Amino acid sequence: MRFELTKDILDDIREYISTGNDSKLEAFLSDLHHADIEELIDELKLNEAIYLFKLLSEQKKADVLVELEDDVREKLLESMTSKEIADIVEDKIDSDDAADLFSSLSSDKKSEVISLLKDEEQVSDIVDLLTYDEDTAGGIMAKELIKVSKNLTIKTAFRQIRKQALDMDKVYSVYVVDGDDKLIGTLSLRKLLVFSKDPTIRIEEIYSKEDLLTALVDEDVETIALRMQKYDLVVLPVVDAEGVLLGRITIDDVVDIITEEAEKDYQMLSGLSEDIESTDKITVQLRGRLPWILIGMFGGVLSSQVIGQYQEQLQLIPAMALFIPLITATGGNVGVQSSAIVVQGLANNTMKLNNLKDKLFKELGVGVINGFICSLILFGYSFFSGQEYALAYTVSTALFIVIIFSSLFGTFFPLLLNHLKFDPAHATGPFITTSNDVLGLFIYFMVGHIMYTL
Amino acid sequence: MRFELTKDILDDIREYISTGNDSKLEAFLSDLHHADIEELIDELKLNEAIYLFKLLSEQKKADVLVELEDDVREKLLESMTSKEIADIVEDKIDSDDAADLFSSLSSDKKSEVISLLKDEEQVSDIVDLLTYDEDTAGGIMAKELIKVSKNLTIKTAFRQIRKQALDMDKVYSVYVVDGDDKLIGTLSLRKLLVFSKDPTIRIEEIYSKEDLLTALVDEDVETIALRMQKYDLVVLPVVDAEGVLLGRITIDDVVDIITEEAEKDYQMLSGLSEDIESTDKITVQLRGRLPWILIGMFGGVLSSQVIGQYQEQLQLIPAMALFIPLITATGGNVGVQSSAIVVQGLANNTMKLNNLKDKLFKELGVGVINGFICSLILFGYSFFSGQEYALAYTVSTALFIVIIFSSLFGTFFPLLLNHLKFDPAHATGPFITTSNDVLGLFIYFMVGHIMYTL
Repeated sequence: MRFELTKDILDDIREYISTGNDSKLEAFLSDLHHADIEELIDELKLNEAIYLFKLLSEQKKADVLVELEDDVREKLLESMTSKEIADIVEDKIDSDDAADLFSSLSSDKKSEVISLLKDEEQVSDIVDLLTYDEDTAGGIMAKELIKVSKNLTIKTAFRQIRKQALDMDKVYSVYVVDGDDKLIGTLSLRKLLVFSKDPTIRIEEIYSKEDLLTALVDEDVETIALRMQKYDLVVLPVVDAEGVLLGRITIDDVVDIITEEAEKDYQMLSGLSEDIESTDKITVQLRGRLPWILIGMFGGVLSSQVIGQYQEQLQLIPAMALFIPLITATGGNVGVQSSAIVVQGLANNTMKLNNLKDKLFKELGVGVINGFICSLILFGYSFFSGQEYALAYTVSTALFIVIIFSSLFGTFFPLLLNHLKFDPAHATGPFITTSNDVLGLFIYFMVGHIMYTL
Repeated sequence: MRFELTKDILDDIREYISTGNDSKLEAFLSDLHHADIEELIDELKLNEAIYLFKLLSEQKKADVLVELEDDVREKLLESMTSKEIADIVEDKIDSDDAADLFSSLSSDKKSEVISLLKDEEQVSDIVDLLTYDEDTAGGIMAKELIKVSKNLTIKTAFRQIRKQALDMDKVYSVYVVDGDDKLIGTLSLRKLLVFSKDPTIRIEEIYSKEDLLTALVDEDVETIALRMQKYDLVVLPVVDAEGVLLGRITIDDVVDIITEEAEKDYQMLSGLSEDIESTDKITVQLRGRLPWILIGMFGGVLSSQVIGQYQEQLQLIPAMALFIPLITATGGNVGVQSSAIVVQGLANNTMKLNNLKDKLFKELGVGVINGFICSLILFGYSFFSGQEYALAYTVSTALFIVIIFSSLFGTFFPLLLNHLKFDPAHATGPFITTSNDVLGLFIYFMVGHIMYTL
């Protein structure tokens, strides 16, 4: 079963919706995975989406709602009564997904839906989860999990596990707790299967306490994503400060976080202020793109003022204009490299072993060598291409200094932002290239001024 | 258990190694997760790493080897005899990891190690896996899995599952096959637990054939990563063209692929040709950084020739030099935005619904509006800042055209690369900014030429 949404399929679906051909639609939808339905709904207009959604089974409605993008989900939910929402949520959605879904509801509708839910355990799980910040472990954990007390025999434990498994979508791990509900270890499904022929053995004899990794309930989701990735975890238990087991985080949620973080950094580097896709409407694209172009343009205006300051010099040595793009482009390229290395190092946690001095010192080394090689080549080129000696000197000296400054600035600035608790990714992209343009021109004309007045 | 490698710990370890304080080292290592040991080894010099590695238990050695970066692993393996390697591999490593490890060995050593392995099934699994291309499903799948025939009763199936589980690190899913070993469905662990009290029920009565997702053995790993992410899968079975079950891919391997792909695109966009970290040696950094700076510099030289062509015009209207950086920077920013949107769209598979004409048409729309707003602002600025009328006209008209061209070029070029089966990410970063510099200057001076000769 491998579905690919094509323009033809989309056109057919639209046709069926507009003509009210429900039987064709239902036949088509019944074969489809909920992730595919979600993809399809994302491409439809709101009224089409509402029409299609109503044709789904209750379970598929639940699954699709969980998958949908926030804005589409919000609009779909607005079109539904509290009773309809409660029917969908009732025992069909894991607590973490239900809490996500509730955060798309207005507070009135939220309490109405809660009052209509019959399963008290589900209600208390959801209400509990809604109290956590969505960027913390608590905000992405699910309450459904399988836990057994260390004192039980395999036989009793098996019975309990079976009962708990009924409530769950997927089972990855069995948690072992002590009398105070504190997490003390895990019982792998493998062990459970292997020891199931030994009914009287006690959990405490076979459970594993080694390599027990946990998340604290108020830990940041990015930290948790890195931890799950580093230790190759599929599921991570969440505990409070006392070690009491509260929930579990599964890798599928974390994969989405990893992808989102990477996309966000990529967008910052390319000068996009939100998640822009080529399928987005022009207005959405403008909102995410124009501000950055304007920032760059503002930098260009500053550059023009720098050059304006040296206009007399430029009239004396008009050939200096030739190398303006070379100086600004190289400064920009070098700065982007440096800042990108820092941002990536901060994101994947690989740069903690060096202190600031070490980092800047090493970057200085890289900058000096890069600068030396580049300015040597440029000196050769400008000299042999018939420029006068003084200009060849000026351009290559300026390039040398620009490369070093841009390297250091590109390294230092994201570290500074990070230190001040801002997202260091703001120091990449148009911002760094713009600052380096202005800085580079200053250096270029200052060097020129010195060379020609000597 | 949450370990963080600090400079102090690293210094201590180095001290213990140099003084041969094995008992301290062993005590330290015994508490450590293999992923932490891997992180530690990555920071040590080779001789230190070899020393430390020898102190590990066989199982930890196996786990650490699997985690290590390719280059470090290769060197560690070179320091070991075939017998030592065989002891580590023997029944301690999953087939996919063993195959990875074998690909770091010379072909002589590979056959020696294989001849020393006693477990024939393991040997045949590894040899089989070594035949697949590492960028395909076959190249990352593991052969260890749990499968049962649809004709079995729960009781018999349970016995078979227990036996198969003994060989496995983690158990996620039980696969159901027909008489020809063709995959026909899955039996979730949840169902297995729930029905375990019903020993005579047959697998075919309870297994699930819905939503059965598979990977073809020769499918590309990136396609598989997207599929597992879209469908929130933790494990995906791999089949051949006839549907015969061959192996399974787990999400932890896929998470690494997703991260690597994202990092590669990020590096392309920032002008880095390999995975550069700030902790890398200066020589490594130069290798990854200098080529891109030189490409940018070459573009700068081209730019200087474009300006050189129009030097007479520049002498007549020296103020045209003022806006050179504005034109090049804006062209670069716009081009990077456009190409980044395309590259991200291709990477996450969201842009397949529009054809080339639609995409370029929409980008034209965005470019025209962005260009109009920017050139209007720039016209106002340059006019009110006292520039002559003709220059204000020239600059704003040129900017308008540059923004439109850069948008279209930034959209078209990565699509072209992708169509020609090159990595579209090559069209981002220094390459696009450099081309747009040259293009932008041409447009700027041509517009200037027309304006002033009219």
